[in-house]
Amino acid sequence: MSQSTSTYRGRYTEPVPTSNLSTLEEDFPEFEPFDDAGTEAGPRSHAPAAGALSVQNIDMYQQVNKPNHFTSAYDIENLVVRRGQEFVIRVTFSHPPTPEDDFQLEFLIGSDPSANKGSLVVVTFGARRGGPWSGRIMENQGQTLVLGVTPTPDAIVGKFRTYVAIVAGSGLQRTKRDPQTDLYVLYNAWCPEDTVFLPDEAERREYVLNDYGVIYQGSAGSVAQRDWMYGQFERGILDACIYILDASRMPIYNRGNVIKLVRRGSAMINSQDDNGVLVGNWSDDYSMGKAPTSWTGSVKILLQYVNTGVPVCYAQCWVFAGVFNTFLRCLGIPARVITNFSSAHDNTGNLKTDLIFKPDGTPDKRHTRDSIWNYHCWNEVYIVRPDLPPGFSGWQVVDATPQETSDGHFRCGPASVAAIKEGLLCHPFDAGFVFAEVNSDVVFLKRDRYGTLTPFKVDKTHVGQAVYTKAVGSSSSMEITHTYKYPEGSAEDSRSTSRAEEYGCERDHSELPDAQLSVTITANPCSLGQDLNLMVDFNNQGELSRTVHAHLAGSVVFYTGVTANHFKDQDFVVTVAAFQMERVMLKITAQEYMPHLGSQLCLHFVVTGQADDQSVTAIKVIDLVTPKLTLEVSGQPQVNREMFVTVSFTNPFSFPLENVDLSMEGPGLMGDRTRHYSVIEPQASISWMESFVPRLDGPRRIVAVMDSNTVRQVYGAVDVIISP
Amino acid sequence: MSQSTSTYRGRYTEPVPTSNLSTLEEDFPEFEPFDDAGTEAGPRSHAPAAGALSVQNIDMYQQVNKPNHFTSAYDIENLVVRRGQEFVIRVTFSHPPTPEDDFQLEFLIGSDPSANKGSLVVVTFGARRGGPWSGRIMENQGQTLVLGVTPTPDAIVGKFRTYVAIVAGSGLQRTKRDPQTDLYVLYNAWCPEDTVFLPDEAERREYVLNDYGVIYQGSAGSVAQRDWMYGQFERGILDACIYILDASRMPIYNRGNVIKLVRRGSAMINSQDDNGVLVGNWSDDYSMGKAPTSWTGSVKILLQYVNTGVPVCYAQCWVFAGVFNTFLRCLGIPARVITNFSSAHDNTGNLKTDLIFKPDGTPDKRHTRDSIWNYHCWNEVYIVRPDLPPGFSGWQVVDATPQETSDGHFRCGPASVAAIKEGLLCHPFDAGFVFAEVNSDVVFLKRDRYGTLTPFKVDKTHVGQAVYTKAVGSSSSMEITHTYKYPEGSAEDSRSTSRAEEYGCERDHSELPDAQLSVTITANPCSLGQDLNLMVDFNNQGELSRTVHAHLAGSVVFYTGVTANHFKDQDFVVTVAAFQMERVMLKITAQEYMPHLGSQLCLHFVVTGQADDQSVTAIKVIDLVTPKLTLEVSGQPQVNREMFVTVSFTNPFSFPLENVDLSMEGPGLMGDRTRHYSVIEPQASISWMESFVPRLDGPRRIVAVMDSNTVRQVYGAVDVIISP
Repeated sequence: MSQSTSTYRGRYTEPVPTSNLSTLEEDFPEFEPFDDAGTEAGPRSHAPAAGALSVQNIDMYQQVNKPNHFTSAYDIENLVVRRGQEFVIRVTFSHPPTPEDDFQLEFLIGSDPSANKGSLVVVTFGARRGGPWSGRIMENQGQTLVLGVTPTPDAIVGKFRTYVAIVAGSGLQRTKRDPQTDLYVLYNAWCPEDTVFLPDEAERREYVLNDYGVIYQGSAGSVAQRDWMYGQFERGILDACIYILDASRMPIYNRGNVIKLVRRGSAMINSQDDNGVLVGNWSDDYSMGKAPTSWTGSVKILLQYVNTGVPVCYAQCWVFAGVFNTFLRCLGIPARVITNFSSAHDNTGNLKTDLIFKPDGTPDKRHTRDSIWNYHCWNEVYIVRPDLPPGFSGWQVVDATPQETSDGHFRCGPASVAAIKEGLLCHPFDAGFVFAEVNSDVVFLKRDRYGTLTPFKVDKTHVGQAVYTKAVGSSSSMEITHTYKYPEGSAEDSRSTSRAEEYGCERDHSELPDAQLSVTITANPCSLGQDLNLMVDFNNQGELSRTVHAHLAGSVVFYTGVTANHFKDQDFVVTVAAFQMERVMLKITAQEYMPHLGSQLCLHFVVTGQADDQSVTAIKVIDLVTPKLTLEVSGQPQVNREMFVTVSFTNPFSFPLENVDLSMEGPGLMGDRTRHYSVIEPQASISWMESFVPRLDGPRRIVAVMDSNTVRQVYGAVDVIISP
Repeated sequence: MSQSTSTYRGRYTEPVPTSNLSTLEEDFPEFEPFDDAGTEAGPRSHAPAAGALSVQNIDMYQQVNKPNHFTSAYDIENLVVRRGQEFVIRVTFSHPPTPEDDFQLEFLIGSDPSANKGSLVVVTFGARRGGPWSGRIMENQGQTLVLGVTPTPDAIVGKFRTYVAIVAGSGLQRTKRDPQTDLYVLYNAWCPEDTVFLPDEAERREYVLNDYGVIYQGSAGSVAQRDWMYGQFERGILDACIYILDASRMPIYNRGNVIKLVRRGSAMINSQDDNGVLVGNWSDDYSMGKAPTSWTGSVKILLQYVNTGVPVCYAQCWVFAGVFNTFLRCLGIPARVITNFSSAHDNTGNLKTDLIFKPDGTPDKRHTRDSIWNYHCWNEVYIVRPDLPPGFSGWQVVDATPQETSDGHFRCGPASVAAIKEGLLCHPFDAGFVFAEVNSDVVFLKRDRYGTLTPFKVDKTHVGQAVYTKAVGSSSSMEITHTYKYPEGSAEDSRSTSRAEEYGCERDHSELPDAQLSVTITANPCSLGQDLNLMVDFNNQGELSRTVHAHLAGSVVFYTGVTANHFKDQDFVVTVAAFQMERVMLKITAQEYMPHLGSQLCLHFVVTGQADDQSVTAIKVIDLVTPKLTLEVSGQPQVNREMFVTVSFTNPFSFPLENVDLSMEGPGLMGDRTRHYSVIEPQASISWMESFVPRLDGPRRIVAVMDSNTVRQVYGAVDVIISP
């Protein structure tokens, strides 16, 4: 994005301002003569006489404004308000102003502020016309006036500089620049005229004000969850969010437009293209940074990004989603993290995910290009879409995980969830891509000896099995699959899918022979290090008995569905009588899979079978369950009183854990703390106590994460209610 | 776009192929045993016996295929065909194949080709099922078979590698990789099933096959034109276009999707973000490269980009549009260059262009942020839009000029022209931005002494005054304004604008006092170096006589409307009787403006007037007319016969021209030739003769451009009809 100003000299009257935080220059001379005041004498001679009205103090009245604007939790010196809602400033003058005294407030953002772009706002308090923000004198206390100022509901979002200007002689006499009067203006979910308005108070408390949450992982059959500390109110985070917009060189003028802002945000949370916040890493080698599984929340990541100016290593989808959620809530935009189980990916936005098999029925990994992620996390924001026809406002998908094959978009959304449900993919942005993630058919193809592909099975229900998010006001899960799609097989579902096809999503229309034979795999949850039993059920709906020559292939996979290590092959034969079901139990021992795990916890089994002319296939993904950390708190749970938290763990494995990092944090309670253990022997226990002083009241949570090269994804959390 | 494969190991089964030209590896072993052939013996033992059928020669049959596919003009060794249309290959075998002999053709593109992604295509010629391209035996000539192959109308576009594989024993015996049999597959405007189908033959000849054109410049009142040599058939250009896609790392799989391809192209023609083809420069300093005005066409630019791998300096909008047009036509996509006169720009996609005036009525340049470009060039492509509801196929805007404030999109389109006309801005891509370019209102605002802005005039007709393109089959212009907008003031126009507003385009709704007084400026065309007369007409529709205190401000501006140098201020007073018009003649001498021109040729005059409470304003842009180059051709106009072209010029100015570069080129006739003159004295003449040998027949053109630091934009052209 480099651009020398000189090269564009003939194009812009002034450079477009793209930086909010770094404007430390003086905006005005302290005395600015009117343009129309003539030039025959120097400005000095027009300066106000001694004894003229001047400003002694500007009080941003935080104790009144913060509770009214739901911004008390921000750990910051300056006033934070939400747009479209009145806030109060107390201005103390040198003597009580008379009705003849004329003054105005001025709010400036970015370099070279401009009245018609909304980056220089003049607020007047009398008959004289001012800018779009309204002002009124609320109370006259002699020397001090209490002034009410209401920013427009479409005001620019960011950090404004505040001035008071008094009409004095033939010019304006202004206060000096004072960083203490700087004012942060946010989006306002409480304001009906704001594009982020959310009518329900409980939802606003969850989606704007809750600073921790739960992200769902695992698979549809065995949903796992991990806590994520959003920490949008922690010290430095609001400035970090504005820094991200500055780093992206987003024009100041556009920062009040929530559609542009969330789209820009989805590009900036990943580092591709633009040196954004996080570097994606889907491998087992995290030696150049921190493993994606090892983070407790967003705060450390955002502060590291701001302090170093370089992208932070490393992220996978839930880290992108967690940090993006912090960014959105911090700026006042209602947002939540979504998990889509069995998410079609990297299939170039089509409605087909092709899995290819060899002539003998075993998976042909060399020729399979598409993958189905066990789960994928993205975000939703609740916003009005004035750019779309009616009916498509509300929740919108935004995704900060870089989508490698989505035509070079390293951003995604906002895509209307309602439009996705209806298959109306003709509306921006990237609705087709998200539709494919929740609706693709899985096409099983056999590749013949000449390289020609023939489909033999189409699974229309596997992809997008369930879409989860955390419920409002509780830690339990809420399934929102129905907001993305109509019930599988319903008339509405097929209408929606046909419509998506009309809008260019390719779909499979193979004519398949009726399958009389089928196979399914089930299994009970299995802890890491334990043996596993697979129940393989062959079902014969035909009138003839069938002898199936079957094969089990077992691999360790990444959560992206890609194979990390192949560890098992087993042939077996089973005969299934007509109209009968036959179950085969297959045992997988810990000794078989443990040496191949690396940092992954996900096992992937494929059973294929051949019976005469028929091929059958079933796939089962099993997430191994990790041990938990135990957390306990003690002390009086009250703001500004010292408390203690103890995290303890016993190594349940038969091998030592080496190079163990243990981290914990709790927004509003304590910042990130980390401790290193060089080794934890088998059956050995550790216990670690830390003291902390709560900053915020209400229900709060501390989360801890243990990370080592051999075992990852060991979590724990504890809840505490802090009184004021 | 850097991405280490190792970091993504757990995400992709294989890296997504993004390179077409650099795949020099062997695709196959010469003998490939079948996967199901068992492994008990080495492949050697399965190799065909001596005397088995083998391939002696593959003839791509260019003399037949090229005329049928309208690709004869490409100056390239390899066969170029258009998809969705049969082409012919002659394969000569070691002996006449029998019906028992089984063979197939294989076409591969990019690394790691994949049958289900369309990058590995198997073509069969018998009962055995092959891939999606159909094959048939057209003629059996004993040892030689004439084979017809029809690529699907949605095939990947680019350079395929060709193989013949014979089923031999338990495997496939293949021909060796032979670059001479490589095959270029293009989009096909002649194929009704292709998304780029254009029904009219004259239009196909213009928009796909014409390799030179005219780009309109100047202003709506005095349209100027310059020739542009697209040269899409010249040596190296087709490979250059594929190189651009490779440089952008566009996945091979997506290159048959014209929507994705033109969108990617619009990003890649400018260098921002992605090290694309051209560096924009809107200044008077082109010392680090060539001035945007100095190019004769696209060929030199594209070849320089390919040969150096770094962006070429410098471009302004018509250069971006000209090179983009070459790229599009070269790949077979119907495309044309468009000029929009009085194009609203850099106003963040809103329907207001704000011009700000001081309290005394003179332009307030310091506070004006928006600009109206005298003209702006973009491209249109003719394509089907399956991603949109019916009615929005056909011409689509794509724009490669970087739009600095369009939310960081350094690409634009495709945006349906039909959707823009209807104000239906809810459809991708970037329709709102283009709508604003042709429909914005110009709002004249007065800035009071306190910094508050008040509108005093709104001009709803100035922006998007006329949209031009070159007519089909001639060098004359065609106005296509009506394809972008309904007649100004019509009911359809206001419906369309209201709809655009509903979709988020901001517009001005100021209540303005009835203006009784108005002013307009007219002028006759003026040659560079001559005096100029402005006719300023004041019109009084009121019942009272008015005395107007008026001011003329004269500047040299860039074509972007931005001031380069201010050179004149003049006050005058005029009294206009009730219901009368009063004309004031103002003379601008060459001595006044010449020293301030720099490389610009555009004068900008603003007349403002005050009469009691009324303010009036008028703006006039005048493009100075440059002298012409004279071109003459001699010799017999026939393919492969030597001819001569002479370009001559006399310096009409009273000053010497220094450091003069003279360039000429003619696609199909001669490549770029350049000559340097250190000085051309006043009234001195130059004459330069070059020989050339025509490569292509038909109507052809040679264009010449003269460029010096003091006088730019001196052009000439000559037409010649070459017989075969």
